[in-house]
Amino acid sequence: MSVYQATASAPVNIAVIKYWGKRDTKLILPTNSSLSVTLDQDHLRSTTTSRADPSFTKDTLWLNGKEDEIKPGGRLETCIREMKKLRKEIIEDKDASAPKLSEYKVHIASYNNFPTAAGLASSASGFAALVSSLAQLYSLVPPVVSPSTLSLIARQGSGSACRSLYGGFVAWEQGQLADGSDSLAIEVAPQSHWPDIHALICVVSDTKKGTSSTSGMQRTVETSTLLQHRIKNVVPARMAAISTAIKNKDFDTFARITMADSNSFHAVCLDTEPPIFYMNDVSRAIINVIVELNRLSVEKGEGYKAAYTYDAGPNAVIYAREKDIKEIIQLVLAYFPQTAGEFKDVLGVFGGSVQDVNVHGTIPEGFNDKVANKWEVGSVKGLIHTKVGDGPRALAPDESLLNANGIPKTLA
Amino acid sequence: MSVYQATASAPVNIAVIKYWGKRDTKLILPTNSSLSVTLDQDHLRSTTTSRADPSFTKDTLWLNGKEDEIKPGGRLETCIREMKKLRKEIIEDKDASAPKLSEYKVHIASYNNFPTAAGLASSASGFAALVSSLAQLYSLVPPVVSPSTLSLIARQGSGSACRSLYGGFVAWEQGQLADGSDSLAIEVAPQSHWPDIHALICVVSDTKKGTSSTSGMQRTVETSTLLQHRIKNVVPARMAAISTAIKNKDFDTFARITMADSNSFHAVCLDTEPPIFYMNDVSRAIINVIVELNRLSVEKGEGYKAAYTYDAGPNAVIYAREKDIKEIIQLVLAYFPQTAGEFKDVLGVFGGSVQDVNVHGTIPEGFNDKVANKWEVGSVKGLIHTKVGDGPRALAPDESLLNANGIPKTLA
Repeated sequence: MSVYQATASAPVNIAVIKYWGKRDTKLILPTNSSLSVTLDQDHLRSTTTSRADPSFTKDTLWLNGKEDEIKPGGRLETCIREMKKLRKEIIEDKDASAPKLSEYKVHIASYNNFPTAAGLASSASGFAALVSSLAQLYSLVPPVVSPSTLSLIARQGSGSACRSLYGGFVAWEQGQLADGSDSLAIEVAPQSHWPDIHALICVVSDTKKGTSSTSGMQRTVETSTLLQHRIKNVVPARMAAISTAIKNKDFDTFARITMADSNSFHAVCLDTEPPIFYMNDVSRAIINVIVELNRLSVEKGEGYKAAYTYDAGPNAVIYAREKDIKEIIQLVLAYFPQTAGEFKDVLGVFGGSVQDVNVHGTIPEGFNDKVANKWEVGSVKGLIHTKVGDGPRALAPDESLLNANGIPKTLA
Repeated sequence: MSVYQATASAPVNIAVIKYWGKRDTKLILPTNSSLSVTLDQDHLRSTTTSRADPSFTKDTLWLNGKEDEIKPGGRLETCIREMKKLRKEIIEDKDASAPKLSEYKVHIASYNNFPTAAGLASSASGFAALVSSLAQLYSLVPPVVSPSTLSLIARQGSGSACRSLYGGFVAWEQGQLADGSDSLAIEVAPQSHWPDIHALICVVSDTKKGTSSTSGMQRTVETSTLLQHRIKNVVPARMAAISTAIKNKDFDTFARITMADSNSFHAVCLDTEPPIFYMNDVSRAIINVIVELNRLSVEKGEGYKAAYTYDAGPNAVIYAREKDIKEIIQLVLAYFPQTAGEFKDVLGVFGGSVQDVNVHGTIPEGFNDKVANKWEVGSVKGLIHTKVGDGPRALAPDESLLNANGIPKTLA
């Protein structure tokens, strides 16, 4: 008998125009459009194997080897149900000979290759990998089904997951319809358009647990006196301007808008009752260092070199062009020293490979080093150097996370 | 021959609706109205002695015993010139027998009784004391001249100084006229209306020098996408609502608006390019502690107990009613321990007097102590417990800061 199984990987994405606020919490419809850069799956990814089999008695999902409850009406159940519905409507109802996979239970194993400790949201890549693996299992792939259509379903798992259905530079159009059928991801530009964009993730230690983004954003919607102005008057212009900047590979505009929107997002968090804080003193020290680097660079007539952005946590993501990333890493190391092994030169900019390299901090000539204090080792727990990447991938059968019996290999 | 001399003291004020942004930087005309609480001069004050004498060869000012240059067209020169002008117009032009003090040079000695290290803006109390002492010297006192009229001149020395011309609860009406003649302070309610309001100043250590408010606020005016919305749509409603709350002694509303406007002010600072940060991790920990204290109190049906507010620095000012201040001090001490001598029970709430008292930290029953980490001694450098106070005072001749020759006693 035949085995119906597919394995997919999906990338992390980091927004440059931030999503903050839902107009519909069940369908996960946002109060404003957002835009993100997809990061390279070679470094950060979620991998998911899905199998449909008539012998399975219930839909089951294992996350990092541990069974995760699929609650009725919950986000996981919604995504699986919607994918089965799509399979039935688009394939089975139109082709009587197609196997009725939508009627089989599924076993799903998902794995994130980055530690939770990294403080990177895994829900975006996780739900994107889930939907992608089911799409392959159900033959819901281009040209039959577009990533935008799949993004409608991934969005109901985790809003920002819809942006991980494409590589490169991706917009999540907020949409207007009540059923959410126009709230989806579109590709602004593929990875190949601007592969020069690198990202340095600074993993910042935080002793206090922050407010979850799900509860935090609704508190902002309910209490901020500034959010509606941001939504109506600030974000739409930025969406248009940064899309143009990306199409033109205009890094100065891209950087200015990215930093301004990160600040605007954290400003409305602070304007919430009670206020929400995600950045800490280390986060702010990184901002001061990047601001001074850009000041110096603009003064020299070289334009912006880096753009910081912060999600719902203290970690910084610094976007820069490949030509500048080495200098930026050395500058960060000068203020936030790393212990051996905490920084891996995965992209080899220091001539290293995936082995650790010993990189010394360097402060450029003319840089006002008083803009921040030098922090002790561990203030920035680690650095991840990556770049803009491609969209979800179909992986070979030998990369399956399930064994012959449809049980995670890690458990077998 | 007669000696023409007067000595006055003036209070510090801490805004609950924040002044941030000028529409005229020379006249110091604000982009929005603001409102403050005047703090007790028994604890924090500036004292100024002014003398006019035909033998003096130039206007001279000593601040804390050190001569301060009076720059032509500068803020000090403006205030002195405007006070002389007022003397001439209102007294000398109407009464030929009045001595022509406006034609004499003045010697001025000013002293702040609080250390600069406290990080409290001394410009407000300083310019208010300067204008008040000259007003007494020149007989420009009620009913001839109102504090509101004097506030027009103090405003040109330092914007927030205009609010220190009254005690109690004071509004600075932004005004509409280009010449600034309607941008002045008015009394919302005197100290005697709501003497129950206490203030706890938490002096927070900061290793980095922040952006000066003078330059910072104009950067916000130029670059923030949220400031205009705050000015036009947020502040006017809050001015009206908090004025009513003060008249009704409605602490819950007073507290909510005070905290919301502090957050809104720091939000527009963060929305500035490059962003301005005044609060640090200690400041935010204090906020989390106050938020939890209020949550617990509201849960018990007792309403709000405290309101935090932050100016252009990391120091917290916590407003509370006398009945709650003791519990609040003990709570703050539980998270931010003090070394002996750093906290003086000047108001005797712990049965002490002006001597140091040994106060132990206490966390109330039902309080979630996980909302903040406990900080090491010195994170909060000191605590100043004070309360709402009266306006500028005329002091007795024996409190003069000038000796018989018109030289600061500290120098003689």
